Amino acid sequence: MSTELFLSRWQTAQRRIVEAGADGIVVRGGSDLVYLTGYHASSMERITAFVARPGGDTPTMFVPKIEVPLVEVQPEVYEVAGWDDDQDPVELIAGALGDATKVLVSDELWAVHLLGLQRLLPETEFVSFSDSLGGLRSVKNDDEMLAIQTVGGLANQVAAALQRGEIPLVGRTEKEIAEDIGARLIAVGHETVEFCIVASGPNSASPHHHPTDRVVQAGEMVLCDFGGKHEGYCSDITRCVWTGPIPADVAATWDTLKKAQQAAVDAARPGATLGDVDAAARDVIADAGFGDNFIHRTGHGIGTEVHEQPYVKSGNDETVVEGHAFSIEPGIYIDGEWGMRLEDIVVVSDDGAIRCSTTDHDLISVDA
Amino acid sequence: MSTELFLSRWQTAQRRIVEAGADGIVVRGGSDLVYLTGYHASSMERITAFVARPGGDTPTMFVPKIEVPLVEVQPEVYEVAGWDDDQDPVELIAGALGDATKVLVSDELWAVHLLGLQRLLPETEFVSFSDSLGGLRSVKNDDEMLAIQTVGGLANQVAAALQRGEIPLVGRTEKEIAEDIGARLIAVGHETVEFCIVASGPNSASPHHHPTDRVVQAGEMVLCDFGGKHEGYCSDITRCVWTGPIPADVAATWDTLKKAQQAAVDAARPGATLGDVDAAARDVIADAGFGDNFIHRTGHGIGTEVHEQPYVKSGNDETVVEGHAFSIEPGIYIDGEWGMRLEDIVVVSDDGAIRCSTTDHDLISVDA
Repeated sequence: MSTELFLSRWQTAQRRIVEAGADGIVVRGGSDLVYLTGYHASSMERITAFVARPGGDTPTMFVPKIEVPLVEVQPEVYEVAGWDDDQDPVELIAGALGDATKVLVSDELWAVHLLGLQRLLPETEFVSFSDSLGGLRSVKNDDEMLAIQTVGGLANQVAAALQRGEIPLVGRTEKEIAEDIGARLIAVGHETVEFCIVASGPNSASPHHHPTDRVVQAGEMVLCDFGGKHEGYCSDITRCVWTGPIPADVAATWDTLKKAQQAAVDAARPGATLGDVDAAARDVIADAGFGDNFIHRTGHGIGTEVHEQPYVKSGNDETVVEGHAFSIEPGIYIDGEWGMRLEDIVVVSDDGAIRCSTTDHDLISVDA
Repeated sequence: MSTELFLSRWQTAQRRIVEAGADGIVVRGGSDLVYLTGYHASSMERITAFVARPGGDTPTMFVPKIEVPLVEVQPEVYEVAGWDDDQDPVELIAGALGDATKVLVSDELWAVHLLGLQRLLPETEFVSFSDSLGGLRSVKNDDEMLAIQTVGGLANQVAAALQRGEIPLVGRTEKEIAEDIGARLIAVGHETVEFCIVASGPNSASPHHHPTDRVVQAGEMVLCDFGGKHEGYCSDITRCVWTGPIPADVAATWDTLKKAQQAAVDAARPGATLGDVDAAARDVIADAGFGDNFIHRTGHGIGTEVHEQPYVKSGNDETVVEGHAFSIEPGIYIDGEWGMRLEDIVVVSDDGAIRCSTTDHDLISVDA
């Protein structure tokens, strides 16, 4: 990534900081720091923080002294200030904020550091970046959209293999299937596996199920929700298969789910709110009598993190804009019986949402 | 882990909360939550939080509704309250805190959640747990001490293989060597590799170096610092080897380092301060003229996290107590030439520190 890209991102960030009525920012090591500087900080107790005043001097990146050799020199983007283990980095950060009156901080800044800043700068108001501005990274540029489509296409290949029956299910444990899917994610080009849910039979009613030693049986649901990273960007896809002939009631409920997912994709256009997108899916499911069985939001933003701003959820009045990338993943869960979820990542163009995965949107029957 | 263990830990925690003059606590998902409840929460934007008033009702664990099926029912230890995606969990947490006047929060609580709590409870003072009490997990019980000694012994085996010359170095890249060490950590019984620094030649002067494609040469330093997890507890060990005959000046400097490390181990007795332990190593190195080349603290606590309370650093006047477990790892770094570090984990008994690794403390010459 180039100095020009980071300078351009910082220009945009400064404009947004000013729009939020703020005059300072503290960005903790993590995805926001990578976005602004390219630097992947360690995420332990020694804080790395990008500290700046909009319109002021070059930002300062405070880095534990022992990690200074790891930082790329980019003097136009930031100055590096190494801090010693016998120094209090919070004092240094407070010093760099100076007389700032309102400071935006990363959502993920640790409480111990925020409390220290509040103690040292009692007159300064601290506000979380996403509370005020919907996140630093939520609007993607063309390169990022392409990266998200690319990694989405990789995960799509593994979902297609699942639907073609190439991943053995019956007689294997959820853990074994999850390992198989993980290996396939790597084989098609992901550098890392970020997560892999394999939930069979009644376990599929637990949306964030962790794969267990349960052996998959014939005649049941297998819900697979997985993703990895490629060149820094994340994939995330959910498909369900049924081991054997699909019961009529399950097929009918899937039909509702598929319509709900399509309705949300159709609604995800610039100008709609994220709450509208959620409602589009939720209304279809509620009208079919399953409102109480759709127990989560419709989706989450995605980029360098699997979950990031913006969130597709009830009541979110933030507007969908070109450059948003998020999941659309309604689900219906019947406790003790089965659950189903259908998920694609979409990127938002000027005339609507584009799916990053093209595999079949049906509930597929695979040989038992 | 048993209900009795968690109840006993919560009893101790309540006593400490009261000692800190506080009347409430918020523990975010992470190692502190595992310590109090056994529950491994996902660590994304949907918060999981243990909220309680000492002496009050059974603590409440707020869990994203979609993850409620993952929580073990332990009604004596906590009540589970699932929150929906269209609810604000911060409002629920604030409600559970009620009229608390001083609330301890996890160091790692996210700023966005703390700021929300401060907004909803403007009269309440929030304090980080470690700022007031030195961490929830820093004093280990007998079982934990044993677990740390056990996992330390596993890593020790890999360090011994390095010293015996069983891990090929010259002609391989740092990355290849790191992969080899990682595989050996698993082979001896770790479930996960948490980190592996392999730093050769001038790279060894960068304490947190990330392994690169640099090929190890004959006649240079190779610093290896690695660890993994076994049954939830972490190992962490550093040994250095020299590829070929060791130059006299390097050998003499190592002698200083070894004496410094021994001095800190000797100083790590109940009643000393952690600052005293740091000074014991630092003084030896400074007296030899390398004070400016020891650019980090002497050590960090270890347990379910690689780095946790307490920190062995200059000026820390916290007292060493029986049950502490921490690293003692002084280093000397010469920019552009080489760096050296010698690290053992110690557990503190009533009559002093016990090393968890027994491999040779010399700089070993391995065949080039």
